[in-house]
Amino acid sequence: MLNATVPRLLRWFETLEDQPSHATECPPEHLAAFREPLPESGRPLEGLLDRLIDDVVPWSFNTAGPGYLAYVPGGGLPSTAVAELFAAITNRYAGVCAAAPVAVEIETQVLRWLCELMGMPKGALGVMTTGGSLSNFIGAVAARHDRLGEDLTGACAYVSSEIHHCMTKALRLAGIPSAGIRTVPVDDQFRLDPSALRALILEDRAAGKRPFLVCASAGTVNTGAIDPLTDIADLCADEDLWFHVDGAYGALFRLVPELEAPLRGVERADSLVLDPHKGLFLPYGTGVLLVKDLRALRAAHDADAAYLPPLNEGEEQVDFCNLSPELSRDWRGIRLWLPFMLHGIQAFRDALREKHELAIHAAEAIAQEPGVVLAHAPRLSLFAFRQTFEGLSLEQENRRNEDLLERINHHRRAMLTSTEIDGTFWLRVCVLHLRTHRERVDEALRIVREELRNPGG
Amino acid sequence: MLNATVPRLLRWFETLEDQPSHATECPPEHLAAFREPLPESGRPLEGLLDRLIDDVVPWSFNTAGPGYLAYVPGGGLPSTAVAELFAAITNRYAGVCAAAPVAVEIETQVLRWLCELMGMPKGALGVMTTGGSLSNFIGAVAARHDRLGEDLTGACAYVSSEIHHCMTKALRLAGIPSAGIRTVPVDDQFRLDPSALRALILEDRAAGKRPFLVCASAGTVNTGAIDPLTDIADLCADEDLWFHVDGAYGALFRLVPELEAPLRGVERADSLVLDPHKGLFLPYGTGVLLVKDLRALRAAHDADAAYLPPLNEGEEQVDFCNLSPELSRDWRGIRLWLPFMLHGIQAFRDALREKHELAIHAAEAIAQEPGVVLAHAPRLSLFAFRQTFEGLSLEQENRRNEDLLERINHHRRAMLTSTEIDGTFWLRVCVLHLRTHRERVDEALRIVREELRNPGG
Repeated sequence: MLNATVPRLLRWFETLEDQPSHATECPPEHLAAFREPLPESGRPLEGLLDRLIDDVVPWSFNTAGPGYLAYVPGGGLPSTAVAELFAAITNRYAGVCAAAPVAVEIETQVLRWLCELMGMPKGALGVMTTGGSLSNFIGAVAARHDRLGEDLTGACAYVSSEIHHCMTKALRLAGIPSAGIRTVPVDDQFRLDPSALRALILEDRAAGKRPFLVCASAGTVNTGAIDPLTDIADLCADEDLWFHVDGAYGALFRLVPELEAPLRGVERADSLVLDPHKGLFLPYGTGVLLVKDLRALRAAHDADAAYLPPLNEGEEQVDFCNLSPELSRDWRGIRLWLPFMLHGIQAFRDALREKHELAIHAAEAIAQEPGVVLAHAPRLSLFAFRQTFEGLSLEQENRRNEDLLERINHHRRAMLTSTEIDGTFWLRVCVLHLRTHRERVDEALRIVREELRNPGG
Repeated sequence: MLNATVPRLLRWFETLEDQPSHATECPPEHLAAFREPLPESGRPLEGLLDRLIDDVVPWSFNTAGPGYLAYVPGGGLPSTAVAELFAAITNRYAGVCAAAPVAVEIETQVLRWLCELMGMPKGALGVMTTGGSLSNFIGAVAARHDRLGEDLTGACAYVSSEIHHCMTKALRLAGIPSAGIRTVPVDDQFRLDPSALRALILEDRAAGKRPFLVCASAGTVNTGAIDPLTDIADLCADEDLWFHVDGAYGALFRLVPELEAPLRGVERADSLVLDPHKGLFLPYGTGVLLVKDLRALRAAHDADAAYLPPLNEGEEQVDFCNLSPELSRDWRGIRLWLPFMLHGIQAFRDALREKHELAIHAAEAIAQEPGVVLAHAPRLSLFAFRQTFEGLSLEQENRRNEDLLERINHHRRAMLTSTEIDGTFWLRVCVLHLRTHRERVDEALRIVREELRNPGG
């Protein structure tokens, strides 16, 4: 099977540059063809591969290609694909240390490396997940258990109005009622306002509520804002609150020495979320939660049963099933261990620096166009912009910008997305794909410039 | 990279039959060698593959091999490994329908097929997860949200004393206090006792509590017991409670026509957990939650944000991010779609029937040995047994059986595990590995017989 699949995949891979950046207007009858009865007996592999390559993969956002400047791009590092193949064929179970001590050790080592790269204190560790949403959830549960125990009465968690929605969802899933999810306003740079946060905490305490958690962003998805992390860390220390940082998009930029300063404070998090399928260019499906105090994570998640192998209590050998909601899971560590060993960390630093510089380059070029405003210059690798028109209402301007986005994307060489902040429509550019280099960014800029200058369409 | 990896993996694969069933007494210095600095620059692939194959993979329970009669085996179907490779290289994002409508359609179709195979009503659907634990959690959250809203005061959920611990953990993660997790006793066949359940519900209601959920097992891990599902379904209907079935180990045996009867009632679940990495022989990391009413699942998990693409509300085109805690996730549907299409469902039916028959064969052979008792004859493909000795105390007998297990496993041809029920130690045999056939079971039986007859060791 592998011998038939690999060449077919490699042929597809060679055409990546020429593939459209997206194609989702799939005809309904094309979808309907997949609503077929479950076959009793099998079909030949070749036909199935053709169907996947020809009929499934092309109808999509091309999340593997260099033109994917949309959302926060996920990568598709081939060495992780090799690692996944390896993990699936050998089928090792790494949820419990006893079942595969060396596989668990390399997963633990990956987590130790990530803690080190994030500047977290010795003894910090964590768990690998499928993505930022689950990591945020696990952090929320650890905070809840550590600070509130089982009684959720009056629980208050604090998020900024710009935080990723999966954080508030994580709190809901953890049983925090919506009244306990308190929204803190942001400043003119879209950063959580620490004095407003402090005022809200004091107000809640005065009303007999139980503040327990502050969630900050190290890179929001709307504008790339980084919350004032050290101020919030100080406040959390003063007020004895759990300090959670959602760094799914941005925290991994700390690998680049010159970006350590803007991200200062991530190392003080009680829990920190990273998305290696974003910042380390892996294929979709790898998130990380790092925690300062492993015991808090274990206390919230441990469970034992007579039919399980003996579990570990130490800091050196861990059972991931006791640090997360998952018991069954794939052998996840190899996804990151193999790329780290194969490419070395310098390759990741270089790639992140490249994306940062490309974003600055793109933002500067776009900002020079007549009438264009940026929400903010890129701090990491994303920025939002819009075109303004004299004499038009906000609503009319929004329509023009929606139309602009549509015309840019219509070229199918670069896919941008949008967001809306306080009723204002913004186009977004996020440079984080491993295959996006200067050439494609310049091509995208030519298209953006052309469409900015043709406001009529 | 693939061209170097594939032959190496295939060579390893060819030796599977001869590999020991487990080897975990890994020397500490061997582990310590992996605690190395993160390399700045890369290392050659060949050496890394050798290290994985020679130094990581062998130190483990051989969860890919035919002698793995331990716990509930996970499979390692090569066609899923091919699917994973495919998904990782093409790196499609299937969390939102708009991003890859056909990829989402095939994942949806896989879920429709599973609903059909489980006899669930038209309109049922669900979501693919990484395993039973997360599926149980998602079911618990859907039940909580549907029946209690945001107020968890007095919440009561009912589980049997034999339920998998991940179910009670799921309830804890969902914010249900331990006092609200009510344990129902089992009968002499380890099945939840419906009259005790009813009495407990009435008692709780009388005390002003708010019963909302009953969790039943379709195949417990201790003894393979199947709770009286139709009785519990009736009771849930009468008492207006959410009926959740953890069928992670057993429910997929419903594919075998002659096993439909003992599993009757799974089709009435409000939420039903399956583990395709168990019952469909996939590599670790694929769970499923099916729900009767998709709206309840969506109501508990939906969330929207300005930076997301347009989301769907219908039953035909779904956004998996709005049906589960995960936003980022891998392209999961292909893991099951490719094997279903490639092998046909008949191959899975046949394999499940084979495992069932092998378990009966093994249980009958072991039960004929002097002094051996079974907890219960295998209903699906697992059973627990122990050796009894006249004149010995329970504790002495337990030690003898622990010793027996150790001696059997010492051969490293078949790995069995154990459990403890009410202070009694049992050896467990679970036949569910795709590579376990008659020959290996007979070899295991010869070893068990030999060790049963040499109680001195």
